[in-house]
Amino acid sequence: MNHFFKVKTLEEVMALTQEFSSVGSEKVPAADAFSRILAQDLIAQKDMPGFRRATMDGYAVEASATFGASESSPAWLDIAGTILMGDIPGFSIEKGQAAKISTGGMLPKGADSVVMVEHTDLIDETSVEIYKSVAPLQHVIDAAEDFAKKETVLSRGTFIRPQEAGLAAGLGFYQVETYKIPKVGIISTGDEIIPIEEEPAPGKIRDINSYTLAGFIKEAHAIPVCYGIVKDDLAALKKAVEKALEETDMVLISGGSSVGTRDFTIDVLSTLPDTDILVHGMSISPGKPTILAKAGKKPVWGLPGQVVSAMVVLKIVVIPFLNKLKGLAQQDQMIKVPAKLTRNVASAQGRRDFIRVLLEKKDSVLLAKPVLGKSGLIRTMIHADGLLEIGDHVEGLEKDTMVDIILL
Amino acid sequence: MNHFFKVKTLEEVMALTQEFSSVGSEKVPAADAFSRILAQDLIAQKDMPGFRRATMDGYAVEASATFGASESSPAWLDIAGTILMGDIPGFSIEKGQAAKISTGGMLPKGADSVVMVEHTDLIDETSVEIYKSVAPLQHVIDAAEDFAKKETVLSRGTFIRPQEAGLAAGLGFYQVETYKIPKVGIISTGDEIIPIEEEPAPGKIRDINSYTLAGFIKEAHAIPVCYGIVKDDLAALKKAVEKALEETDMVLISGGSSVGTRDFTIDVLSTLPDTDILVHGMSISPGKPTILAKAGKKPVWGLPGQVVSAMVVLKIVVIPFLNKLKGLAQQDQMIKVPAKLTRNVASAQGRRDFIRVLLEKKDSVLLAKPVLGKSGLIRTMIHADGLLEIGDHVEGLEKDTMVDIILL
Repeated sequence: MNHFFKVKTLEEVMALTQEFSSVGSEKVPAADAFSRILAQDLIAQKDMPGFRRATMDGYAVEASATFGASESSPAWLDIAGTILMGDIPGFSIEKGQAAKISTGGMLPKGADSVVMVEHTDLIDETSVEIYKSVAPLQHVIDAAEDFAKKETVLSRGTFIRPQEAGLAAGLGFYQVETYKIPKVGIISTGDEIIPIEEEPAPGKIRDINSYTLAGFIKEAHAIPVCYGIVKDDLAALKKAVEKALEETDMVLISGGSSVGTRDFTIDVLSTLPDTDILVHGMSISPGKPTILAKAGKKPVWGLPGQVVSAMVVLKIVVIPFLNKLKGLAQQDQMIKVPAKLTRNVASAQGRRDFIRVLLEKKDSVLLAKPVLGKSGLIRTMIHADGLLEIGDHVEGLEKDTMVDIILL
Repeated sequence: MNHFFKVKTLEEVMALTQEFSSVGSEKVPAADAFSRILAQDLIAQKDMPGFRRATMDGYAVEASATFGASESSPAWLDIAGTILMGDIPGFSIEKGQAAKISTGGMLPKGADSVVMVEHTDLIDETSVEIYKSVAPLQHVIDAAEDFAKKETVLSRGTFIRPQEAGLAAGLGFYQVETYKIPKVGIISTGDEIIPIEEEPAPGKIRDINSYTLAGFIKEAHAIPVCYGIVKDDLAALKKAVEKALEETDMVLISGGSSVGTRDFTIDVLSTLPDTDILVHGMSISPGKPTILAKAGKKPVWGLPGQVVSAMVVLKIVVIPFLNKLKGLAQQDQMIKVPAKLTRNVASAQGRRDFIRVLLEKKDSVLLAKPVLGKSGLIRTMIHADGLLEIGDHVEGLEKDTMVDIILL
């Protein structure tokens, strides 16, 4: 196989999502729907709430019976009854009548509004004075006011926040069709990498990438499956990748940082059956040596071994890519906040740069302070609150420029 | 008990966290540390990475041997050997020598920098030409450059993001002391509330609050425990609260929306042993009828029954309160983005208002459009991307004001 590849842009890599099939869907109880992605449109089967409901404690009335009522000239109404919570009123009211009602109660026939109890005076058990007029539909939620029957209330591809979970519940979708939660296999490679329980001799370092990558996968509401550390050995790496491909939906190989190891990743991917190398190098920094292959129908990523590079590629490239595969309609879920840059930042043309920044509020303005330091230093990611993206055709940004920061 | 309470401000309620003991801590594997909160300072036991490491593929040299080297006048060095990944070099180099090294490799004694392979030309197996000078420590990470021995690298109370999990791993903290994940009991009350599997007759509505509240609790990395729906019955509610208090660290009672039910919550809390009502009414909107009690050492919240009010109180009051109890040093974890208000918004003095807004980007400015609608309509929270906070002493905000939006 010829490994001569043109370095790809972020957009070109993201467009490759169409080469992959998205994860399947499954029915889950509404209680488990939070943080998943809808795989069906939710269509209201009935009006919601389905009946005219009080939003205040007081008296259900026909509004016109209160018109002109005031402190000095109250309206005088007969009490036709009391409405119990959750009950269908067993009576209706006429224009001169009122019914005692609590918030959430169902208005009786004939009533179109509620007078707040604060604006009434109970004269005796059968009559009440009204001191303030109400308009029709005041202090009520009408039968179809939240959602109307046949309305599409949520679309396939929607991320289910707490309120969407509540809405599904309220509409009676006790089971919801959602996309499956993808499993992501994580393999750390490199002869210099040792398990974190061990004491590193000089020349060795503990496995950091398995832990940072797993964290980002969890943050993206997917399931990391760690396959440990594989030495720089072709057969061993091939075996690990095959196992991970069998058991998960996507595989991440975080390269040992040597050239040799990177070659191993390409070599292994080249010898896997039914596998194409789609990306070998991206025009982003950090993260240039990123690899993407399609093994069967599944994506396999070769990530840089440098701790910061691996994290940036995961956050900026892999997670949005995964979001698309897992059915999310709005692929870019990264939260950005505007901030003022505190110093000049240089950038190379033809490359997308991601600069770590610390955010600091000063006089109600958010300042973005570039965090200096090599991409092998995890310290720089600990100090960083976000990433500043500098476009391919920008040579740099000047101090005091307002920029959008991707939150970490 | 006298139920006459002065309505409390948000700050007064938040200050009450000190009345409660925080959750305990426990050791967890580094792999499970993501999204938890550190209950210990992490102090580096050794320098990290602990040895002088290459950050580029090339040749380890003593920098001064390359001074003045250029394309036209290269420096000529003898190759003393090749360094294998993860190995301690078995030789040292002198000024006229170089050692082949890969990214991540350990520099031999005598070397203080790395020349990138791109700036060299291999003459034969024993000698290499250098075309570009390097400065001491160029293209290396020094032994203590990431973290130095005895340095406090992370403090107790830190939220563990992916990078903090990776750092703990890298430093060999394969077990980390973290605060326990609190369990939060959720009780829905009200005679009009039915399980979501059932078809509501007129007057009844399905339980929404159990699902929205559980979602927000999960979002806050805590564990919701749902106790279902309790009818408006003193004994039944008392039993449910007692059970929840026994099994969880904090209890939420989402009131049926009737006055009656709110009274039940106060009545039950008043009759529980060793229980004080600390808050009965807050000066926020929505959310005024919020209750906070201290039962033994645990907080019990009475939340409004209106779906929107319950969510706003949870997000704005209960979660930050919980964050404090669970050991988070920076209590306010709400993400805020600046946006431009698209219309005038009125607000009452002496009250903190939270207005639902939809965010829309237009010409690189984020617009905050208030979402109109009653607080009984979940639709308004579905359409909302955030909440606009309006201070106690502000009468309202004018169109085009720049405001901070709390993301939902």
